[in-house]
Amino acid sequence: MDKTKFTTPIPLSEIQIMDNFWKNEMELVRTEVIPYQWAALNDSVEGAAPSYCMRNFKIAGKMNREKQQKGASYIEPKYTFRGFEALPENPDKLEDKFYGFVFQDSDFSKWIEAVGYSLTQHPDAELERLADSAIDIVCAAQQDDGYLDTYYIINGKDKIFTNLRDHHELYCFGHLVEGAVAYYQATGKTKLLHAAERFADYIYDYFGEDEDKCKGYPGHEIAEMALVRLYEATGSKKYLELSSFFINQRGTKPYYFDTEGHPDEKSDADGLRYFYHQAHLPVREQTEAVGHAVRAAYLYSGMADVARLADDESLFTACERLWDNIVNKKMYITGAIGATHMGEAFSFEYDLPNDTAYAETCASIGLVFFARRMLEIKPDAKYANVMERALYNGVLSGMALDGKSFFYVNPLEVNPTACRKDERKFHVKPVRQKWFGCACCPPNIARLISSVGSYAYTESDDTLFVHLYIGGKLTKNVNGTDVDVNISSQFPWEGNVEIKVRAGHTKFRLALRIPDWCGLDASKGWELENADRFNIEEKDGYIYLSKQWADEDTINLKFAMEVRLMSASTAVREDIGKAALTRGPLVYCLEEADNGKNLHLLSVKAENNFEISDGKICDTFIKKITAQGVRENEQSVDGLYGPLTARRGNDVTLTYIPYYTWANRGENEMQVWTRIDYND
Amino acid sequence: MDKTKFTTPIPLSEIQIMDNFWKNEMELVRTEVIPYQWAALNDSVEGAAPSYCMRNFKIAGKMNREKQQKGASYIEPKYTFRGFEALPENPDKLEDKFYGFVFQDSDFSKWIEAVGYSLTQHPDAELERLADSAIDIVCAAQQDDGYLDTYYIINGKDKIFTNLRDHHELYCFGHLVEGAVAYYQATGKTKLLHAAERFADYIYDYFGEDEDKCKGYPGHEIAEMALVRLYEATGSKKYLELSSFFINQRGTKPYYFDTEGHPDEKSDADGLRYFYHQAHLPVREQTEAVGHAVRAAYLYSGMADVARLADDESLFTACERLWDNIVNKKMYITGAIGATHMGEAFSFEYDLPNDTAYAETCASIGLVFFARRMLEIKPDAKYANVMERALYNGVLSGMALDGKSFFYVNPLEVNPTACRKDERKFHVKPVRQKWFGCACCPPNIARLISSVGSYAYTESDDTLFVHLYIGGKLTKNVNGTDVDVNISSQFPWEGNVEIKVRAGHTKFRLALRIPDWCGLDASKGWELENADRFNIEEKDGYIYLSKQWADEDTINLKFAMEVRLMSASTAVREDIGKAALTRGPLVYCLEEADNGKNLHLLSVKAENNFEISDGKICDTFIKKITAQGVRENEQSVDGLYGPLTARRGNDVTLTYIPYYTWANRGENEMQVWTRIDYND
Repeated sequence: MDKTKFTTPIPLSEIQIMDNFWKNEMELVRTEVIPYQWAALNDSVEGAAPSYCMRNFKIAGKMNREKQQKGASYIEPKYTFRGFEALPENPDKLEDKFYGFVFQDSDFSKWIEAVGYSLTQHPDAELERLADSAIDIVCAAQQDDGYLDTYYIINGKDKIFTNLRDHHELYCFGHLVEGAVAYYQATGKTKLLHAAERFADYIYDYFGEDEDKCKGYPGHEIAEMALVRLYEATGSKKYLELSSFFINQRGTKPYYFDTEGHPDEKSDADGLRYFYHQAHLPVREQTEAVGHAVRAAYLYSGMADVARLADDESLFTACERLWDNIVNKKMYITGAIGATHMGEAFSFEYDLPNDTAYAETCASIGLVFFARRMLEIKPDAKYANVMERALYNGVLSGMALDGKSFFYVNPLEVNPTACRKDERKFHVKPVRQKWFGCACCPPNIARLISSVGSYAYTESDDTLFVHLYIGGKLTKNVNGTDVDVNISSQFPWEGNVEIKVRAGHTKFRLALRIPDWCGLDASKGWELENADRFNIEEKDGYIYLSKQWADEDTINLKFAMEVRLMSASTAVREDIGKAALTRGPLVYCLEEADNGKNLHLLSVKAENNFEISDGKICDTFIKKITAQGVRENEQSVDGLYGPLTARRGNDVTLTYIPYYTWANRGENEMQVWTRIDYND
Repeated sequence: MDKTKFTTPIPLSEIQIMDNFWKNEMELVRTEVIPYQWAALNDSVEGAAPSYCMRNFKIAGKMNREKQQKGASYIEPKYTFRGFEALPENPDKLEDKFYGFVFQDSDFSKWIEAVGYSLTQHPDAELERLADSAIDIVCAAQQDDGYLDTYYIINGKDKIFTNLRDHHELYCFGHLVEGAVAYYQATGKTKLLHAAERFADYIYDYFGEDEDKCKGYPGHEIAEMALVRLYEATGSKKYLELSSFFINQRGTKPYYFDTEGHPDEKSDADGLRYFYHQAHLPVREQTEAVGHAVRAAYLYSGMADVARLADDESLFTACERLWDNIVNKKMYITGAIGATHMGEAFSFEYDLPNDTAYAETCASIGLVFFARRMLEIKPDAKYANVMERALYNGVLSGMALDGKSFFYVNPLEVNPTACRKDERKFHVKPVRQKWFGCACCPPNIARLISSVGSYAYTESDDTLFVHLYIGGKLTKNVNGTDVDVNISSQFPWEGNVEIKVRAGHTKFRLALRIPDWCGLDASKGWELENADRFNIEEKDGYIYLSKQWADEDTINLKFAMEVRLMSASTAVREDIGKAALTRGPLVYCLEEADNGKNLHLLSVKAENNFEISDGKICDTFIKKITAQGVRENEQSVDGLYGPLTARRGNDVTLTYIPYYTWANRGENEMQVWTRIDYND
């Protein structure tokens, strides 16, 4: 690692996103997702399974007050349930017990995090009041010792930290910290931050290297990166130390999870027991991304954070290895990861089935987290390219264009009949769902979209990095002087970017990413107007621009945004003989609504004249692309099998739409990878 | 149904199979499978899980004797276990209890059935003595009232017929009957037959339409066709009546299985509860083949039997509908059925994935049963074509060329890495297995192969039907005169057939099937030497030959056995743009051993010059076929995705081997469907 290359995200409070495309997404989150999410937290969504989230906090708070009033030394446990989900015995007559999933507390934390980000971009006094009142409820549940997880507060604190593997206790803690830091950074208010710190202190006292401390680590990772955020927000080194401990301890032998005593444990004949948790090997010895894809991406993100802050070269090397493994062997073209629903996990290398993909929205979000953290260590476009790919495709596809329904699973090919009739594809939904009992993806999208500015730009002392061409205004302080930068672009539809800089006369560099989708052929993929005004250095996929800045300078940059037919590595069996269409950061797909049923009958001509035109899907502007293709005639043989005949098909025009906009026109077929027709 | 068209199988005792190809398979069964199976029944196979089958019979017999000695009125139950499989508490110290699966008795029945068939083709006094001694052990377990299922005899007869859905009680009964009839017909010995009759009588008294009788039916079908066989062997009409009852009762409401009270029952919101058992609708209302494929094929076979014998047109119509549904929408080109491992079941129409296929050997065997029974009603080549397809491909692939290992699952595409690493494909094995605890497929292959003569030929009063060109001698009685027919062929390798007939001067017709794989193009697919000697009628895919027979006549027939590239219906998504190679009755495949790794990189040219040559696999003669193909260069892009480039591949020679011979040269890739290259 070269510390001089380290970059850090620009605080959201210093950024105003002005981008047409992303502002719209953020408004959806603000006006649709956040209010809906609040209703869900409070069990007031008609027809949706109750979350019990805020209810659990209230009950824990009530028990807390009763204890304090009675001067009791501990809370009488309710022992509602010790499993993964507790449902009320009688839904019409709820008792003062814990209900919902073990991780239900995190619903609040994800919401407050999104609220925090949203407030930086769109101040809203009423929302802030609501958030403050929710924080009051949550904080009232906190124990005198700092502990704050309602599952154990209500059910009995005698059992805390006894099932780290399955019970998401440190996961809930991690989300609480993330939410608390975000809300503090947005509002300056410290109540929730202090609560999170107190809980973190409690955990710090419990876990660690000291002989008398517990040697456990999270079953579902996130605390690792959350603790780093808490360290960066508060400056308190012990949080970084705790994060390092969790990471270094993970996967060492004897396995901590073994010592917890899980009676249902499967035999570990294949040494595969903790693959699912990325706890099968010490993290520095892990070379392949395995197990639950969201957990994996969260762990790797935390590892990158700690590598950077602890100046840990071996940890960074492990991160690079895992990154390369994902990107070169385990990632869909949409930036989705997690090819199998068995364990919502990475499959083996190059196994990327399109129709049975798990490709969870949260996993793509995790990949964005990981990418940004790698960029903080080393501004190399290879990270930002993947970040962009995941963001515009695998993440955005998770939310409907109206912000009202969501995909957890983002397949690259869908036949609705199979989703309904084939048990092997029951995890694949042909249309987005309203909200799930396990509310991971929608709030995760909400927090990512509302904080997209933290991913678009990072900075070092004298350089502003633009990783994503998302329009926005931001201010960077260079040696005490404020540099104002105003970026505008028509991404993802056009490759033009205009950047206005008011740098005064400071020493200042702009580093502009050259996207991987331009400039791969002989001609240069980008053009800078009046380039001779600048000192230009091209390095690791970035254009470093400097000059003697005037009071206001305007940079006009153009990236060639061509339609490209892409092929996959020949090692990907599922994509052999097929091509996907992309333009700029967007992956495109065919949908039945435009191309009729039986998309598998279509092939796209290798030599093609693509036409790009403006269109709308559900009132949302898109650029659609038409291409020449062939539709094979249906049922060319009698019965199921017959002698191969000369090909019979008709030339057709294929209409491609951006992948993230699919399934917004009802249930229908979709496919990203289409067979290639090499003939004229 | 036209009764004048009914045909019946020739008794095996009237047939001597002399066929090179099938005689070899039968010898494998006789010398390898039957002895191995006997050892398995007696728990003396090193390294294999014990079956406990004969042991259970001995214990039940011992309890029986003790009861008789004590003059007790009932056997003290052992209550070993009431679940699906009972394992000993201490494997080193077995007690006098029932061990194994609930259906373990059927292991004996399948063995005795295969033994019976084998004795007709290869008398073997020692084997017969062994069989007789086994029969003694089995019969000693029979109760005074005729009941004979060791699971309930040992565990407590108070529970008999309380779990028809899951406990295979009537399945074991059915297999016992099949074995008993086969052994009786082979040897003339009646001991086991009488035992089966007594058990059948017991069941007849228990189940039926009378008000006071139980309205249940088998959870796993087979008793239906077994009872018909018992009726045909004994002439006792009540067995036919019982079979009709089971069939007519099935799927009627209220569902019988509901009344048994299964506390673990899932809700039937979708009305899908008994799809798995084909008990979701009355059988005459079933139009789609659904559920567990073996059960389905056994049911349909029984339905066809009863339709014929009870002259039940509506039942026959249901059979035809289900037949057409399977053959036109749910069958692999290998004659395999059951596209999903979820429930070892039929998937939805046209869903025929190659790499995750279940395609159980037993299900193809069941399809052969069904086909023969349809032929008994109506000699139409459409049934025999499928019978042949299943037999030479989906069935034979179940057994290794040395008869020592077996496939339960017969996929059409295998990547061994996926079998090991992808949980979704764990059911697919890249090499045949020794023997399973659930020993259904190996003994099922054994009984089918040793009785293949019953499928090759059937007869009506004056006509001998040759459905399969399997070499053999047989005698048909026509109005008191014996007609000797001697068939010889080089099937499946060459299309020549020679038939010598000694018909005396009787009125006699030969009906010779025209295989669906010949004669589909403009020219006639078959040629009869000196055809003008015969009266020839072509009907329903058969050539009906008659003439004024001389003392000895020789018929020389030749079917064009061309190499054919086949395509699937365009409705089969998995096979789009792909072709399979066939020749005669055989489906061919590519194997890594001949074509290198990464078979998905290969494509076969649509215009091709096939070459056929003699070869060997594991010392077994085969005809292999070479074809022109293209191998795409590996890894044509950097990383996972890159712009599509002009195709880069090399012309290669593809070597195809018969599908049934795959996986005899160690673990390797295999594929039946290969991408088509339409270019020159």
